[in-house]
Amino acid sequence: MRITSDSDHLPLGDNKASAWYGRHILKVGQFTREDVDQVHGVAAEMQRMVQRTGGCDLLKGKILANMFYEPSTRTSCSFMAAMQRLGGQVIPINEAKSSSVAKGESIIDTAVTLGCYADVMVIRNPTVGSADLAAANAGIPVLNAGDGVGEHPTQALLDTFTMRQELGKLDGLTVTLVGDLKNGRTVHSLARLLTKFDGVKLNYVAPEILRMPQDVVDEVAAAGVQQDMYEELAPVLADTDVLYVTRIQKERFATPEDYEKVKGVFVIAPETLTGAKDDMIVMHPLPRVNEITVEVDADPRAAYFRQMEYGMYVRMALLALVLGRA
Amino acid sequence: MRITSDSDHLPLGDNKASAWYGRHILKVGQFTREDVDQVHGVAAEMQRMVQRTGGCDLLKGKILANMFYEPSTRTSCSFMAAMQRLGGQVIPINEAKSSSVAKGESIIDTAVTLGCYADVMVIRNPTVGSADLAAANAGIPVLNAGDGVGEHPTQALLDTFTMRQELGKLDGLTVTLVGDLKNGRTVHSLARLLTKFDGVKLNYVAPEILRMPQDVVDEVAAAGVQQDMYEELAPVLADTDVLYVTRIQKERFATPEDYEKVKGVFVIAPETLTGAKDDMIVMHPLPRVNEITVEVDADPRAAYFRQMEYGMYVRMALLALVLGRA
Amino acid sequence: MRITSDSDHLPLGDNKASAWYGRHILKVGQFTREDVDQVHGVAAEMQRMVQRTGGCDLLKGKILANMFYEPSTRTSCSFMAAMQRLGGQVIPINEAKSSSVAKGESIIDTAVTLGCYADVMVIRNPTVGSADLAAANAGIPVLNAGDGVGEHPTQALLDTFTMRQELGKLDGLTVTLVGDLKNGRTVHSLARLLTKFDGVKLNYVAPEILRMPQDVVDEVAAAGVQQDMYEELAPVLADTDVLYVTRIQKERFATPEDYEKVKGVFVIAPETLTGAKDDMIVMHPLPRVNEITVEVDADPRAAYFRQMEYGMYVRMALLALVLGRA
Repeated sequence: MRITSDSDHLPLGDNKASAWYGRHILKVGQFTREDVDQVHGVAAEMQRMVQRTGGCDLLKGKILANMFYEPSTRTSCSFMAAMQRLGGQVIPINEAKSSSVAKGESIIDTAVTLGCYADVMVIRNPTVGSADLAAANAGIPVLNAGDGVGEHPTQALLDTFTMRQELGKLDGLTVTLVGDLKNGRTVHSLARLLTKFDGVKLNYVAPEILRMPQDVVDEVAAAGVQQDMYEELAPVLADTDVLYVTRIQKERFATPEDYEKVKGVFVIAPETLTGAKDDMIVMHPLPRVNEITVEVDADPRAAYFRQMEYGMYVRMALLALVLGRA
Repeated sequence: MRITSDSDHLPLGDNKASAWYGRHILKVGQFTREDVDQVHGVAAEMQRMVQRTGGCDLLKGKILANMFYEPSTRTSCSFMAAMQRLGGQVIPINEAKSSSVAKGESIIDTAVTLGCYADVMVIRNPTVGSADLAAANAGIPVLNAGDGVGEHPTQALLDTFTMRQELGKLDGLTVTLVGDLKNGRTVHSLARLLTKFDGVKLNYVAPEILRMPQDVVDEVAAAGVQQDMYEELAPVLADTDVLYVTRIQKERFATPEDYEKVKGVFVIAPETLTGAKDDMIVMHPLPRVNEITVEVDADPRAAYFRQMEYGMYVRMALLALVLGRA
Repeated sequence: MRITSDSDHLPLGDNKASAWYGRHILKVGQFTREDVDQVHGVAAEMQRMVQRTGGCDLLKGKILANMFYEPSTRTSCSFMAAMQRLGGQVIPINEAKSSSVAKGESIIDTAVTLGCYADVMVIRNPTVGSADLAAANAGIPVLNAGDGVGEHPTQALLDTFTMRQELGKLDGLTVTLVGDLKNGRTVHSLARLLTKFDGVKLNYVAPEILRMPQDVVDEVAAAGVQQDMYEELAPVLADTDVLYVTRIQKERFATPEDYEKVKGVFVIAPETLTGAKDDMIVMHPLPRVNEITVEVDADPRAAYFRQMEYGMYVRMALLALVLGRA
């Protein structure tokens, strides 16, 4: 709601002193280490609350416009559950649009309109920059849930929260990213966010054509973080604290043969983990296809399903923070 | 719920004395001026409540079946938000059907079924008369959210509420309707509803082939309201209190050239408004394509986004009224 | 939620003494007569509560993942309304998938994921066994809302609840099943569930090619229940307490002529019911097409719309029971 749109702050909750109040969540680069610590701290509180009572009324009377312009059941449901566990309501909007110019225009108008109805907005849209457009116009806090090959900041926050909750810390971790590092928005954001912590070491394991893009490598290097590139997992597995697996899509390769040549290297099976530490974890943004076999699910180090649940707590934290209730 | 369907009143809330209790909202013609005043009065209360507290529990425990048989994100979200801000719950039903006979049948059975689950129903369906069919069978109050070229009564109520809140009155206004006046359900309903007020003057600005239909003109004339027709905006702009813009669809014209000839006349840009009053407003039912340029958005007279928000308050008022809670 | 997944019971509500707590609802065969009596008892309480107050807060803070992988507005809305009337929240998931192997995999991963977000899950999926798969992996109670030609246990529970509420008992009833008894999942489950009660007599009225399958007949016979087969309704109508009608699909017949020959026998019109008892009822799982004419709707014996409402109470009962709140 924003009929009185001439005030210089957003007409929200009751913790206006917080720097998070009314803030948009658009890109990983907007966060300091203190920000990440704070989100994780609130997320840990959310986890305790949910495990004790299931839910609360912190956001009672608040409405989330959950706008998904491309399908993503997991992310959409995660935000929906986060809002509902805090006692808030959700307006689900699932639309697949196509024409590009019309799309750009309609994002602004739709953002303004939903800004009239709701108190906070989550947007996923295949167009890079769409979340920024919405944020500039909605009049309410906007959370970017993925804008094409652009950003997916809440994923990086939940990935790091998972590491912290499972391993007790973020500083000093050796994180091995495996799979398609070229096209994976998730691993780009994660690598960037990990530079905020001390003594993190990054291993990139990918076929040559799917290597981490140079701009991400440069940015991470500039932050003083050690990065090493490999085409096989074996050399780095024993030292790995976090094995972060992503999917390799067949279609990325010039020929089916090129794909067949490398795919075996990037499938995680129980025997793959024989040489790994006892207290390491395996993560995956999901959905997986076959890059982690289902037999791995029973391994206590398989953290990818718990990762989903941590995601809900991080999103609860973000919703409460931007609505001035945490 | 209506298992005991033999009672002569609907099994609803606790304000059974109200004439609105259990009433269907089907067409503009059903309202007296007093009705409109009453809806607007409750809507203004809703606005104050929302701006003060964000929401309340007036409809806690009530369920709205929000049935959309053709897509309309704005209207659908508006009703959803209205119900949620009053503490109620929503069952969203989004279906696109095609076969016409089967459709007619299924509307009745679906209305009866949803009438068993919900307390109030909103229906949008491309078939004229479908809301009446639903109302005759559902056993709960039905709100027509648009039935084809038929009616869209809540739009007319929110349009007039917007004028009243922005300009302080409805009596004596000069309202200029611009664009496709032939096919726009919205402007037909609005013209009819404005006849309930005193001293209203209507200007119709449209290309010849898209003029206001004669039956609407006759009905409005019979109510004693002054109507004047133009093909350009310039002659009437200076006297206009409300400039109500609608979209002109290219496909309505015989040739692209016919469209090109007139389209410039019907695009509202900042320079268009130079000759307009300071305290007039520009309205639009949205979505717009290009008939109002985005540069106009910054003009305080641009009321079309606030109009969206007023719509939520009007729908909150209607839901509370028909459920006997206002 | 199930981060602490090593406990031997589900981390749910506060009535852990109940045998229903944390239980999956997968097939009719899992129920004893005592189970059915208990569900019906709670459902009757739900009916009284709803008719008195409209809703309550019994499941406040609980979230239902309502997963429909094939469209079924009625069943989906029924569960949604059931959860909402108990004060709970719903995450609606509507997806139509196609590829079969991928589907099997994704059901497990999706079930685990939603198990992280929600407290209880309803699943409808065209693949037989899909609900069992979900139940084995979700970590929260799973309710089968129909898995292909497999089971639809909540339908059988609501069908028997309807008979009990309308006729005062289940023992001793003569139930006549009419229509396509070969392909109707509903009638198979119903016949099986009715064997739990004493002195029930079953009549099957169907064209020869659409007879009740032998395995169902054998199972029912083994339980000592009398079954008689007919190709016309007339011989059994006068003795019938419950006339349970199902749709006959034209496509089931070899030729249109074969269909035309039998279809008249299986259409229930007002005149059909002339010879029926005054206190019998007509049921139908809905949606109907033309197998019951709309003229029958006005007959007080037409119970098929009330049946919808009873369904909501039965689903409320099941949700409350498996969440340990009843």
